[in-house]
Amino acid sequence: MRKEKDYLGEIEVEDDVYYGIHTKRALINFPATSEKLDDTFIWAYFTIKKACALLNAELGYLDEKISVAITRACDEWQFLKDHIVIDPLCGGAGTSVNMNVNEVIANRASEILGRRKGEYIVDPILHVNLHQSTNDTFPTAGKIAVIVKLRELINEVINLQDKIQQKEKEFYSIKKPGRTQLMDGPPIMLGQEFGSFADALARDRWRLYKVEERIRTVNIGGTAIGTGIGAPKEYILKIVDKIRQLCGVKISKAENLIDSTQNWDVFSEVHGLLKSLAVNLYKISNDIRLLASGPKTAIGEIILPQIQAGSSIMPGKINPVVCEYVMQLCHVVFANDVLIAHACSLGNLELNQFAPLIVHYTLKSLDFLKNSCIALSAYIPFIKADERKCSENLERSTALLTPLINIFGYKEVSEAIKIANWDLYRAIEILSEKRHIDPQEIIQNLNIDKMAGLGYH
Amino acid sequence: MRKEKDYLGEIEVEDDVYYGIHTKRALINFPATSEKLDDTFIWAYFTIKKACALLNAELGYLDEKISVAITRACDEWQFLKDHIVIDPLCGGAGTSVNMNVNEVIANRASEILGRRKGEYIVDPILHVNLHQSTNDTFPTAGKIAVIVKLRELINEVINLQDKIQQKEKEFYSIKKPGRTQLMDGPPIMLGQEFGSFADALARDRWRLYKVEERIRTVNIGGTAIGTGIGAPKEYILKIVDKIRQLCGVKISKAENLIDSTQNWDVFSEVHGLLKSLAVNLYKISNDIRLLASGPKTAIGEIILPQIQAGSSIMPGKINPVVCEYVMQLCHVVFANDVLIAHACSLGNLELNQFAPLIVHYTLKSLDFLKNSCIALSAYIPFIKADERKCSENLERSTALLTPLINIFGYKEVSEAIKIANWDLYRAIEILSEKRHIDPQEIIQNLNIDKMAGLGYH
Amino acid sequence: MRKEKDYLGEIEVEDDVYYGIHTKRALINFPATSEKLDDTFIWAYFTIKKACALLNAELGYLDEKISVAITRACDEWQFLKDHIVIDPLCGGAGTSVNMNVNEVIANRASEILGRRKGEYIVDPILHVNLHQSTNDTFPTAGKIAVIVKLRELINEVINLQDKIQQKEKEFYSIKKPGRTQLMDGPPIMLGQEFGSFADALARDRWRLYKVEERIRTVNIGGTAIGTGIGAPKEYILKIVDKIRQLCGVKISKAENLIDSTQNWDVFSEVHGLLKSLAVNLYKISNDIRLLASGPKTAIGEIILPQIQAGSSIMPGKINPVVCEYVMQLCHVVFANDVLIAHACSLGNLELNQFAPLIVHYTLKSLDFLKNSCIALSAYIPFIKADERKCSENLERSTALLTPLINIFGYKEVSEAIKIANWDLYRAIEILSEKRHIDPQEIIQNLNIDKMAGLGYH
Amino acid sequence: MRKEKDYLGEIEVEDDVYYGIHTKRALINFPATSEKLDDTFIWAYFTIKKACALLNAELGYLDEKISVAITRACDEWQFLKDHIVIDPLCGGAGTSVNMNVNEVIANRASEILGRRKGEYIVDPILHVNLHQSTNDTFPTAGKIAVIVKLRELINEVINLQDKIQQKEKEFYSIKKPGRTQLMDGPPIMLGQEFGSFADALARDRWRLYKVEERIRTVNIGGTAIGTGIGAPKEYILKIVDKIRQLCGVKISKAENLIDSTQNWDVFSEVHGLLKSLAVNLYKISNDIRLLASGPKTAIGEIILPQIQAGSSIMPGKINPVVCEYVMQLCHVVFANDVLIAHACSLGNLELNQFAPLIVHYTLKSLDFLKNSCIALSAYIPFIKADERKCSENLERSTALLTPLINIFGYKEVSEAIKIANWDLYRAIEILSEKRHIDPQEIIQNLNIDKMAGLGYH
Repeated sequence: MRKEKDYLGEIEVEDDVYYGIHTKRALINFPATSEKLDDTFIWAYFTIKKACALLNAELGYLDEKISVAITRACDEWQFLKDHIVIDPLCGGAGTSVNMNVNEVIANRASEILGRRKGEYIVDPILHVNLHQSTNDTFPTAGKIAVIVKLRELINEVINLQDKIQQKEKEFYSIKKPGRTQLMDGPPIMLGQEFGSFADALARDRWRLYKVEERIRTVNIGGTAIGTGIGAPKEYILKIVDKIRQLCGVKISKAENLIDSTQNWDVFSEVHGLLKSLAVNLYKISNDIRLLASGPKTAIGEIILPQIQAGSSIMPGKINPVVCEYVMQLCHVVFANDVLIAHACSLGNLELNQFAPLIVHYTLKSLDFLKNSCIALSAYIPFIKADERKCSENLERSTALLTPLINIFGYKEVSEAIKIANWDLYRAIEILSEKRHIDPQEIIQNLNIDKMAGLGYH
Repeated sequence: MRKEKDYLGEIEVEDDVYYGIHTKRALINFPATSEKLDDTFIWAYFTIKKACALLNAELGYLDEKISVAITRACDEWQFLKDHIVIDPLCGGAGTSVNMNVNEVIANRASEILGRRKGEYIVDPILHVNLHQSTNDTFPTAGKIAVIVKLRELINEVINLQDKIQQKEKEFYSIKKPGRTQLMDGPPIMLGQEFGSFADALARDRWRLYKVEERIRTVNIGGTAIGTGIGAPKEYILKIVDKIRQLCGVKISKAENLIDSTQNWDVFSEVHGLLKSLAVNLYKISNDIRLLASGPKTAIGEIILPQIQAGSSIMPGKINPVVCEYVMQLCHVVFANDVLIAHACSLGNLELNQFAPLIVHYTLKSLDFLKNSCIALSAYIPFIKADERKCSENLERSTALLTPLINIFGYKEVSEAIKIANWDLYRAIEILSEKRHIDPQEIIQNLNIDKMAGLGYH
Repeated sequence: MRKEKDYLGEIEVEDDVYYGIHTKRALINFPATSEKLDDTFIWAYFTIKKACALLNAELGYLDEKISVAITRACDEWQFLKDHIVIDPLCGGAGTSVNMNVNEVIANRASEILGRRKGEYIVDPILHVNLHQSTNDTFPTAGKIAVIVKLRELINEVINLQDKIQQKEKEFYSIKKPGRTQLMDGPPIMLGQEFGSFADALARDRWRLYKVEERIRTVNIGGTAIGTGIGAPKEYILKIVDKIRQLCGVKISKAENLIDSTQNWDVFSEVHGLLKSLAVNLYKISNDIRLLASGPKTAIGEIILPQIQAGSSIMPGKINPVVCEYVMQLCHVVFANDVLIAHACSLGNLELNQFAPLIVHYTLKSLDFLKNSCIALSAYIPFIKADERKCSENLERSTALLTPLINIFGYKEVSEAIKIANWDLYRAIEILSEKRHIDPQEIIQNLNIDKMAGLGYH
Repeated sequence: MRKEKDYLGEIEVEDDVYYGIHTKRALINFPATSEKLDDTFIWAYFTIKKACALLNAELGYLDEKISVAITRACDEWQFLKDHIVIDPLCGGAGTSVNMNVNEVIANRASEILGRRKGEYIVDPILHVNLHQSTNDTFPTAGKIAVIVKLRELINEVINLQDKIQQKEKEFYSIKKPGRTQLMDGPPIMLGQEFGSFADALARDRWRLYKVEERIRTVNIGGTAIGTGIGAPKEYILKIVDKIRQLCGVKISKAENLIDSTQNWDVFSEVHGLLKSLAVNLYKISNDIRLLASGPKTAIGEIILPQIQAGSSIMPGKINPVVCEYVMQLCHVVFANDVLIAHACSLGNLELNQFAPLIVHYTLKSLDFLKNSCIALSAYIPFIKADERKCSENLERSTALLTPLINIFGYKEVSEAIKIANWDLYRAIEILSEKRHIDPQEIIQNLNIDKMAGLGYH
């Protein structure tokens, strides 16, 4: 054990850990939840620290040797990340996360310069945190991580859309009944149903693409409350460029750093757009469940991939397990949206005290949505149509008679259907008897084959 | 127009309205939403005012003549309620509602004593509001209104449960396939499904009955912050009894008036219990939708009541419109739960500034749930079973083979089902061939008739 | 009473109402909630009906005389809207609303052609609803209404932003302490705080402006499920243009009518963006509450407008009533977002059965946000600064010492503050004694006047 | 690698893992989220398996040797739990979790009987899962785990309440201003404020105590859909007793196993009650934040524990970090409530497909609430009062004049306060001049010392 000291007193820290006294205190203050800080977020944080060290040296505020040591330590982020141990839901608007990062880098940099952990020839605050505050580094790291994950997500959405479009083509000519409010409706092609799924995802692609624009404005340089207190102007003006070069994400400096520090509406906006993807993934998954339902005693128009046994007791059961997995993940995204909207609105004055919550759950939603797309992309290609069921179903739906209202009137057709007790052919017979038209003529007139085409009447 | 004056200045008020200057100001400050104050809540508020006037006179704090005039005005609440015009979502923790009530009673009481509106021989604050604050009258009125509506709701739940139990009996002997995850499952009786609905509602009855206990503790007498400032002790000790006598609801005085004034967790608790009723109504409605789906191309095991034409274009369509109505109302209750939980938690120090929001949406949820029960109670009796469909479906479900795992093993039965492509009789044939058993023997062994009975194996 | 008949039977309808049998049935099936259909939505629905009548006549599908009568009836929408009585939360995906509109127009048009209500020389379905379905008219009317209200809302946001910017200028030179996590922070200008509010709203203006793009794609012409069944192609291709001419809103035809009919993710997206405005209005209102808190025993840096007496018991009390009103409305918007997201995701197959819920609560959110902006715009101009309190507070905040960490180091300054028990001048003395520097020099060095400027260090 | 086979085909499984083919398939189908299955839940699941093995042997359905091996394997749950690897949000209503448990036990039991993993002399389905289904074991394990965690939570609530009550006593005689809507209100004791926190928690204790009653009814024995298909009656009647003996939790058999299998309203109810605890913890934490705010430029009546440095840039800053931690955890609980209510209501027919989601997030909420109580219990004892600030604040609040309305009238006191610009002593002077009463007499009359006592007037 080594002893470390801050202005509140002295405590012991294990010899082999890179973090220091602040982290140690925080571990006690915030009992661990099951949540873990996101890796991409940790990478973004180290990248910011590196950029600051480089710029501060360039501007003459930081000794070159110390800057090099910090830079090298930052490059080792993947080995050091196990020492970033603060709970993602820590209080303090992320101060303990920032201090954890500062301490780990300071100790590793001190080692690089030949000292032992705890000797702090590189100081967590005076060197690693130079010209920074939690209040500008934390949200900036959060936004960079969001953008990186967003791009991964977009790729998965594109992939999923592609897989669905293949089904759209495959099922292009399979006629089946549509359903409104789960009740029999006019004909549609199975391919058209998958085409609707694909077109919904096309909107999501566009949205996610736009999200990046919304979130790339960062407040780094604003320090504590956006006035940049404690940081020199030249640093403030250049730090965003430096980070951008290192992280490969097109961030830009907020025009109003005070606003950008205290207002988190952009996270609410971004998550609201993510939520729309969840809306579509949920609808798609639920529709697959419905189309496959039965298969023998319900709709059964598609056949689920047989990817695992469905039941530990009912033999031969295949369940829509991937749909259910995705729907559950979407429920979590919906719930995250609730907490993010509230947390964004409940910031006070110059800071949002719930920054850790907002960043953590935005990143989780991005992960959950990515998982959902990956699971569906692996699942949907193995869905098959049950063409016989589709056509049997189609020939039972009295909604086939819809075009007849232009000939016989709505009321007369409705009455016939009611009398026929929703038996399609009996309803045609009734109409035929009443109007003295050959039933075959009515059927030919209906031309089921064309009924799913645009504007059949 | 008459002129009225308070310490902030003078404004004009229409001659024919019973409210006064405070209300007039508030109408400007809070632009009208489409929401309206609840009638039962207004009644409860007038009842409290009446009780206070009576008690204050008894204790010698209020002139007998004025007390009588106030009492008579309160008795006219149904005629006066159109003058209670404050928006239910007013700021000020309900102060404007209390003042609106005070002013209307004061003016009407003044009229009763021979004066004109605005002359205030009976004063809104010194007489009508004597020994009271918004902060104790508003939540007390809210709780009384909740209890009254709760009792109405319980009656409707009982009625609905009764209607469902009639269906349970009616459908007692109709065998049909169960479904898990929308996929074919072992046999069940249609009556058992309705029995499950009824038993879920039985839990709700019990819960709602318990809710009253939770919410009947009131803070009246605590005035501004629960210390009873401005009110004499004898009044504080007796006021709850007086109100209880008048309102017919078993309220009781909170032991800790300070706690009871500032903490609104009980509303969160109560609404959480109401939400459980919504959970069950939603599940029931959704299940009816599913069971009736098609009717020709999906499950179709029950026949929906034909209560209105389902479509303006598709002839003869009958939709599960009441189920959808109820499900929508339940979604509103779920959303109300979100706002009530947050509003309850966001009170500050000695008061919850969101009292109007909490009370208004709790009362709305009670109404919406009552509406839901009424609509379902009128709907469910006309649901019919499609017995033929039930039995056809049953004989298609491969889950019928579940008991065979005790004979042939899970894997062998599963394989047979898979090879048979989920065709029940083909699967039996496969098993019969493999094991050299007569298929009829297997079928007899299965004894479908008894399979929905407890512990068939 | 007159008798009306549909294929389900005959019922009586009051003589003086313009609606007919379908509406009458629906009034029974859906017990009235306290919700009312939105006027703008009703206007949009009548406008669609008018456009259809005009186009159908142009294309030769509708008798010219009947078309003229329908058109004239539609123009009377403001007189007829009291006859649109269906509950906004009706089941049936809005069928009853569409039928209510159809019946009212049909009866009024029949009157115009010299018949009595109920004689239906103009038929609700065959004429008024010609080539339409609820499933394309209802969402199209919903989207048009959203756009109209959106424009009203944008104007109010602009107005509010303007009012806030005036305060930004007025308070430009008033120094005061910033606060992070409600604890004393470095200096900021009161004007900068209002500037942050204004810049947040600038993002909302941009967002709302973008929202219109997202929601203007409509599915009219798609009829029941988006295949346009029952409607001729030339009608499908022209109907959007016709409506656009009449309604003054730039709607455009969806490329995939099937997708546009069944997928409602756009409403989730739009409401998610509206919610971000609520996030900002909430933060602004809450910050005003905090800045004005006390006024004597808390922050008290701004003075609330004295727009109404704050309490019915505490004399002279002024409360942040408009802030509380707005915060409550925002809570409702947050809750609406929950129900809209879920309702959008829970649509099934070719239709979303929760269309009425989604449209109704989107329109309510638009109203609530507009109310909020109006209330704040009338309130904020009367906020005053308490300059003396601002400067007294400033001179107490130990965060003033932040720039000293570049001279004395973080730990030493922290220790001094701790020893001084957060007394600013005592802390300076301690530092001065330790370092043998004249305290006045330290104070001059700090230069409080410039500390809120960008990059003070 | 070893090869395993099910009716869907053959795949390879790593030699050293205890799980088998089903688990292996599920790991691919459900891409890992960051969530982990709860340990207590895993324990409960193994306990159920053990009980079933014992009972099945007692009843003669299971070979004694196999039963012993299963039992021994179950006893090793803590060593085996690392092999329970299924994602908690798996689809299939928990089937993969059940199969994972079955396979791990089967392989370990096979080892105990001298075989190698994969040889399955003890079969996952025929032996370990005998007479069970996921659909009865999963919810039963979930309920047992909830009850165990509930008891832990209650202990922490009791501990927290105790810590708060100590502060109540400590701060008993410290007078300070109350605040309503954050504005100055009548006097209160600091101890009374902590007393309110404690009394709110008393309600939570009672609620949590009641929760156990609500959730202890289990559906074990009901197998797939509650009809107990595949399980013998004697087993069904005895299995609950057997589990109860092993797990130490008073579970009881549901009267209606079908209802208990498909309806999850009890989880919604239970979580709704947990949420009320979150409401109170949030209010308490937020109030501590407010009371400690500043400390120099806001309320500052209590002094926060100095448990860690508050800022990486502002020296000497102490932030309410534990309050913020707890408030964030409560936001998560509120969000969990949203997903649980929706998931409970969205179950279909004989099963709720979202069982894994519901159980997982209920257990997480229990953990988060426990964490919150632990963190506050360690924090609150170190809160100190700033008595000087309390008394300074008290003597500034014009709400002290409230009792004067009984002497001078509400309007006159209000006017005096307004003219005095909320300066307490100036307001008294104004009243004194107007009424020709010595100001000292007024002050003595007010008797501030007694004003926080019940019914001062």
